[in-house]
Amino acid sequence: MIAPSPFAVDFPDMPPIGGIRLAATSTGMKYKNRDDLMMVEFTQGTQVAGVFTKNAMCGIPVDWCRQILPKHKARALVVNAGIANVTTGEAGKTAVKETVMGVSKLLGCEEDEVYVSSTGIIGANINTDLLIKALPALKENLSPNNWERAANAINTTDTFTKGISLKADIFGVEVILNGFIKGSGMIQPNMATMLGYVFTDAKIPASVLQDMLCEETEKSYNAITVDSDTSTSDTVLAFATGEKEHHEILSKDDPVLADFREKFSQINRELAQLVVKDGEGISKFITVNIKGAESDKAARTIALCVANSPLVKCAIAGEDANWGRIAMAIGKSGEKIERDQTSIWIGDSLIAVNGTLNKDYVEEATSVYMKNSYIDISANVGVGAGQATVWTTDLTHKYIDINVDYRS
Amino acid sequence: MIAPSPFAVDFPDMPPIGGIRLAATSTGMKYKNRDDLMMVEFTQGTQVAGVFTKNAMCGIPVDWCRQILPKHKARALVVNAGIANVTTGEAGKTAVKETVMGVSKLLGCEEDEVYVSSTGIIGANINTDLLIKALPALKENLSPNNWERAANAINTTDTFTKGISLKADIFGVEVILNGFIKGSGMIQPNMATMLGYVFTDAKIPASVLQDMLCEETEKSYNAITVDSDTSTSDTVLAFATGEKEHHEILSKDDPVLADFREKFSQINRELAQLVVKDGEGISKFITVNIKGAESDKAARTIALCVANSPLVKCAIAGEDANWGRIAMAIGKSGEKIERDQTSIWIGDSLIAVNGTLNKDYVEEATSVYMKNSYIDISANVGVGAGQATVWTTDLTHKYIDINVDYRS
Repeated sequence: MIAPSPFAVDFPDMPPIGGIRLAATSTGMKYKNRDDLMMVEFTQGTQVAGVFTKNAMCGIPVDWCRQILPKHKARALVVNAGIANVTTGEAGKTAVKETVMGVSKLLGCEEDEVYVSSTGIIGANINTDLLIKALPALKENLSPNNWERAANAINTTDTFTKGISLKADIFGVEVILNGFIKGSGMIQPNMATMLGYVFTDAKIPASVLQDMLCEETEKSYNAITVDSDTSTSDTVLAFATGEKEHHEILSKDDPVLADFREKFSQINRELAQLVVKDGEGISKFITVNIKGAESDKAARTIALCVANSPLVKCAIAGEDANWGRIAMAIGKSGEKIERDQTSIWIGDSLIAVNGTLNKDYVEEATSVYMKNSYIDISANVGVGAGQATVWTTDLTHKYIDINVDYRS
Repeated sequence: MIAPSPFAVDFPDMPPIGGIRLAATSTGMKYKNRDDLMMVEFTQGTQVAGVFTKNAMCGIPVDWCRQILPKHKARALVVNAGIANVTTGEAGKTAVKETVMGVSKLLGCEEDEVYVSSTGIIGANINTDLLIKALPALKENLSPNNWERAANAINTTDTFTKGISLKADIFGVEVILNGFIKGSGMIQPNMATMLGYVFTDAKIPASVLQDMLCEETEKSYNAITVDSDTSTSDTVLAFATGEKEHHEILSKDDPVLADFREKFSQINRELAQLVVKDGEGISKFITVNIKGAESDKAARTIALCVANSPLVKCAIAGEDANWGRIAMAIGKSGEKIERDQTSIWIGDSLIAVNGTLNKDYVEEATSVYMKNSYIDISANVGVGAGQATVWTTDLTHKYIDINVDYRS
């Protein structure tokens, strides 16, 4: 049993969302005495948007979700934890097919309205019999108030259950945004993080929801890394039940959508940050800001180089203001930088100016700053106007402990 | 004091090479009671080839070596350990200039025949006074037999002194190849490893030497990684004194050079492997072979993804045959792979066929294999004929120990 992350926060109170009921149960497939299967049931007409891993070794459930997404209609989401159903070939396809058939019969919906995700060990087969056997219990337990229990059921190495709830205003009508997410290791999402779900009762057409999700993914899930390893199961789905009656939305640029977009951006960013806060072995939450790059994309590449550098991460774990390692990581990215015009800050302290030590820098102050839980690293690489922010963890003994024997 | 790597080997007996004398001494600049400065003196006419880091935040000594390399003549090599002279701006340039001037006066040679390297902390200034003051003692100690002492003087976090000595035949004449290298962390060379030097008494024109070095670099220094961090100081230099009289060499494709090329390839590969064997915290030496990629370059990218994956490295440290993580790392590379035609081996055991578990796979045998010190991982990604081999370490608690307080 791993101790909770020092950044663990309580799961928020989540109000019901019209058109959504949730349930969780235990299959006994891998974990004992805990929920490992959850279902969300959606009302007819629920719109869905999704983004998925770019890992070419992607899981079978990701294949399925990609296949049905163009219909943009969802009636159910079923997620199991423990076995990821990745590199499972025909057996994996059969598992997805049988699950989808079982759920569609149970709820009386179409098969291509049933979204499935799996997380856990790669290369092991799902015990479909146990999963199918658990479905009726799921249906019985469906309740509009089961948010925390559902979110908890999909955790694996997570040390706390991660959710965010917000309210937004659409032209005088208050709508709800609930989201939950799991993820702790194998985290450098490429298009989406491990498993994240956002729900709203707003009436947002799937095409608008998809546009917004793609845009926000770049600034949230694709801007975090724990260990540079891109999961094979990364999935974020956004569901809009449309139970609230409000001004009709036709485009993401509709001015009445401004507050909703702000809150949609916030919920995705905060969910992504929660994954970092539960990053395997975390002792410091690190924000890396890069400015002055050739483009925003170049800035993100540089920021990820800093955020993924084992030497930078170890230095921060050791509370050592070792800015030379930050300089090294900036330089190795392959993106254009001007060495002799680069500035580096830790917190508010300007350490390097024009690529060398700032004469006024006082290391003692920064050494005190390094004892904080939240560490900001910033750099201006002196080329252009590109900028990016990335969030990450430090690298500690606990990360090694967690990962030398994950399967046992 | 860090215990020696379990892969530590004795420094070999190195025969003298005509035209080369070496010396080492202590400046007291950072380390106490150990050599931290070494010099190699070369006879007139010595040819030199070099490859350097592609880190854009490269060190000032790298700037200098790049600047003088086109002359392709060397009379001296001076290397200090403890301070890397990186991101040091004007102070760093002055340090190099004064060092080069001091050495050229001492030995009576041109300034642009004096090669310098520095390794150690990034962002700290070299104490040039201490360095200059130590030069006369270096000159007094010059001896053709000082190989091990010189190699030892440039170590930093290295736990053993790393050298290889070989003999080659050029049309009936025996020539010597001696090489030494330092490096342990911040190792994912991009064009060259931290600091490596190869010496021969063969008469090889600099242009031929440079061609051979560039070719071999791809298969040796650029095929190793410890922690994915590319050093700002990576430098490999090859020196040919030409003291042995043999058949004239005009091109690297000259058939009389065949044996020399084979040995030149071997010495560079073995030096690179020695760096991995002294990789920070190593408990397993890992070889990653990728076949079936779109190109050799694609294969190397995939191999590096596997070799740099913290999850793969932790699993191997934990002696866990967690092939799912290997599949994940193959998939995340961004290179083309065929998931459902990918095969994965650990040692001789074929674990995955057509992207899923081999029915005949017996995990018990592989679990025994995982206890070995040398672990081979192979994969065929089912696309083309590209292949590559990369060598790396596992990721252990010792790596964290070494890097949380490197500067203190």
